[in-house]
Amino acid sequence: MGNLLDKKTGDASLQDQISALEQNLRSLLGDRVSSGTNIREQHGRDEGYHAPCLPDLVIFPKSTEEVSACIKMCAAANLPIIAWGAGTSLEGHVLAVKGGVSFDLSGMDTIVKVSAQDLTATLEPGVRRVQLNTHLRDTGLFFPIDPGADATLGGMASTRASGTNAIKYGTMKNNVISCTVVMADGRIIRTARSASKSSAGYDLTSLIVGSEGTLGLITELTVRLYPIPEKIAAAVCSFATFQGAVETAIATIQMGLGVARIEFMDDHMMSALNTFSGTDFSEQSTLFVEFHGSEIVVKEQVSLFEEISASFGGEELKTAVVTEEREALWKARHNALYATKALGKGQEVLLTDVCVPISRLAECILETREELDASSLVATIAGHVGDGNFHAFILVDPESPEQIEEAERLHESMARRAISLDGTCTGEHGIGVGKRELLVEELGEAVDVMAAVKAVLDPKHILNPGKIFN
Amino acid sequence: MGNLLDKKTGDASLQDQISALEQNLRSLLGDRVSSGTNIREQHGRDEGYHAPCLPDLVIFPKSTEEVSACIKMCAAANLPIIAWGAGTSLEGHVLAVKGGVSFDLSGMDTIVKVSAQDLTATLEPGVRRVQLNTHLRDTGLFFPIDPGADATLGGMASTRASGTNAIKYGTMKNNVISCTVVMADGRIIRTARSASKSSAGYDLTSLIVGSEGTLGLITELTVRLYPIPEKIAAAVCSFATFQGAVETAIATIQMGLGVARIEFMDDHMMSALNTFSGTDFSEQSTLFVEFHGSEIVVKEQVSLFEEISASFGGEELKTAVVTEEREALWKARHNALYATKALGKGQEVLLTDVCVPISRLAECILETREELDASSLVATIAGHVGDGNFHAFILVDPESPEQIEEAERLHESMARRAISLDGTCTGEHGIGVGKRELLVEELGEAVDVMAAVKAVLDPKHILNPGKIFN
Repeated sequence: MGNLLDKKTGDASLQDQISALEQNLRSLLGDRVSSGTNIREQHGRDEGYHAPCLPDLVIFPKSTEEVSACIKMCAAANLPIIAWGAGTSLEGHVLAVKGGVSFDLSGMDTIVKVSAQDLTATLEPGVRRVQLNTHLRDTGLFFPIDPGADATLGGMASTRASGTNAIKYGTMKNNVISCTVVMADGRIIRTARSASKSSAGYDLTSLIVGSEGTLGLITELTVRLYPIPEKIAAAVCSFATFQGAVETAIATIQMGLGVARIEFMDDHMMSALNTFSGTDFSEQSTLFVEFHGSEIVVKEQVSLFEEISASFGGEELKTAVVTEEREALWKARHNALYATKALGKGQEVLLTDVCVPISRLAECILETREELDASSLVATIAGHVGDGNFHAFILVDPESPEQIEEAERLHESMARRAISLDGTCTGEHGIGVGKRELLVEELGEAVDVMAAVKAVLDPKHILNPGKIFN
Repeated sequence: MGNLLDKKTGDASLQDQISALEQNLRSLLGDRVSSGTNIREQHGRDEGYHAPCLPDLVIFPKSTEEVSACIKMCAAANLPIIAWGAGTSLEGHVLAVKGGVSFDLSGMDTIVKVSAQDLTATLEPGVRRVQLNTHLRDTGLFFPIDPGADATLGGMASTRASGTNAIKYGTMKNNVISCTVVMADGRIIRTARSASKSSAGYDLTSLIVGSEGTLGLITELTVRLYPIPEKIAAAVCSFATFQGAVETAIATIQMGLGVARIEFMDDHMMSALNTFSGTDFSEQSTLFVEFHGSEIVVKEQVSLFEEISASFGGEELKTAVVTEEREALWKARHNALYATKALGKGQEVLLTDVCVPISRLAECILETREELDASSLVATIAGHVGDGNFHAFILVDPESPEQIEEAERLHESMARRAISLDGTCTGEHGIGVGKRELLVEELGEAVDVMAAVKAVLDPKHILNPGKIFN
């Protein structure tokens, strides 16, 4: 891999094309165009384990109209277009595998409108989730989707992200009402109106959400907000066996308890969290749970959950009701990736992301843990088990071909196990460059249908080439 | 309009083609092929006001493989394919506007699998919603989506249907996990695995849901189920003014009360319901509401709702806790269409279906009611106001060009009002033949994007031609 420029330094005509494009872009954006190595390096990697691929140029457009004009210039020059938000993707989504222009949209970070009446916010794609919730603080509303990283909303929409709250509030699929999208030919469309639901033709919003920048660039989006619950209580419950924790999660979902978060961490992960965050959690299989509702609703849910967890061997619940305690708890959980990385002294983390029907979850985690234990690599497990979704965080030295090979073997084995259990190789991270073959194993000819849609909406294949499809 | 056969009786070559296709289909399906007028007439109309258009043939396939084989035969003959479920669509979705073959899937009504652990059911597309819930009765689970009619699940998926429960449980968009689809060339794909969530490439499930049979035929689907709440309480609240009712609904949503249903009916509709069902509701603007949860949750919600409705001038709540009472209440509500029809003595009902951001709902209903009152036609209003979605039921004599013209004028005016309020011309009924121009007014160039997707997935334009697109 590598960027076009690096691969084909001898290709003078390509170099000329890029220079001409740079000049055109500068005529519109002035100094918001960069070909400097530092900036290109920054935009050539994400938080995953994939080797960097630098774009030829990085631009910083500020409006839908500028994005449209720049896409037209790139299309005329036949050069790739890669959308950039916060660079927190995990499957190489932002890598310029065929060179081209990285559209850094992080400066398009205006919260255009919050409608407390409609429970919606309209925002530019560079708005980050923490920024949004900070902005909302005085409105009594919040936006629930929380991938571990402080990602941009545009990036979260593009990968159909979710996180710990999905069990109650859904994923980005359920929470984007409408997008403004610039298509491969520069056309600007709006996928839907702002009504809460609609049957007006094909669901283009859902087609764009999760399309990883391969069908168009999102330049504005309207998302759902929720009233901050009157009462929020979090709790930690440790189990002597991982089965106890997983069965508790499954029973909690099946009883329709209405839990807002139910997160599983195995003993390895708990140990990593303690070391990283200086916490003193019991280093056993653990559930972090959270309940949202009125005072009496939450009280009832906590007590029902206590009954369930006790019946599966859970220890006494440690509840965190005070905001600071809760925040510390979830901060520790959100640091799972960084805590595992810290175990590794310079190693990268290969992060798996399987999701299975919840009836198959226990066997899937069990077999995964056994396989990890039999390997030479260090790995932790955490997951949004209420959705049937979990991650193995596998430490791997990027300089060691043996470790990379072993990690990839484990990764593929886990994904294939999930597929064999009628699950998916990716619950929330997306396909990127890392899971293109697995996608075909998972969905077969349906991928040809996706590719046909891609081909007709981006006939020059300039929008984030090399992602999702081989 | 009319079917090809009727329009072109002189066209011997077309007649030959149809006869040849009929023979081919018979070689596969035997007597499950019909060209009889009665059967064709049955399959040439829906429950809407659009003039019937008969298919040339009606077939009754029994499996995905048979659907695939029949689609291949139709594709070879270049003849249209129209999926048929229960015929309860409202915008002419099932009309054979260019003749062709009606694929009656009502016999594919097997409930393949219910997984109580996963809270899912896998079923054939001809399963009806009442059948499904009857089947589920002993499992403690239910499927919440309830358009007024006893539609098939395949039809409900195809129009992205919703109904009274959408405010709590979402629409078909949120409740179909995966579909088996036969594409225009006979290819069989599965849009997703059975995991509760996924980021595996484009969201083909959402692309198919709501595509009205224009991209492929759904031959199996996996849907979400929910635990039947421990406690269900319904209530009726009358208001002296429609504003009181609508403002109560809006405040209920904005407070995040978690109501399961909140249905508005205006005074005209309440009178129609009383006449039709022999009930004795107060003939004022009214909300029917329902609360789902544990004993104490429901008690709390009812009491909070009482406070809200009282503050907007609502009369004392009449609660219906016993199952029979509740069922009678919702049966009356679900009869809104038939009750309005009964006012009309042989008249048809033109049913509008706008949905606006809830902040614009009160003005939208007010202006609509004023416009209806100023017209010569009789009309009632009811709506899923928690979603910002409501319907005007306009009585129209199908033999009177003046009445049709007036009804269509009102319909278009309402749809344009909704669009001008950043809403949609259809919250849940779909586009069909009735709203194709309005779709373009609503979404502009986005409709070209939809058309491009259609063209690449159905290059011969044989799947339900004349629907969604002009």
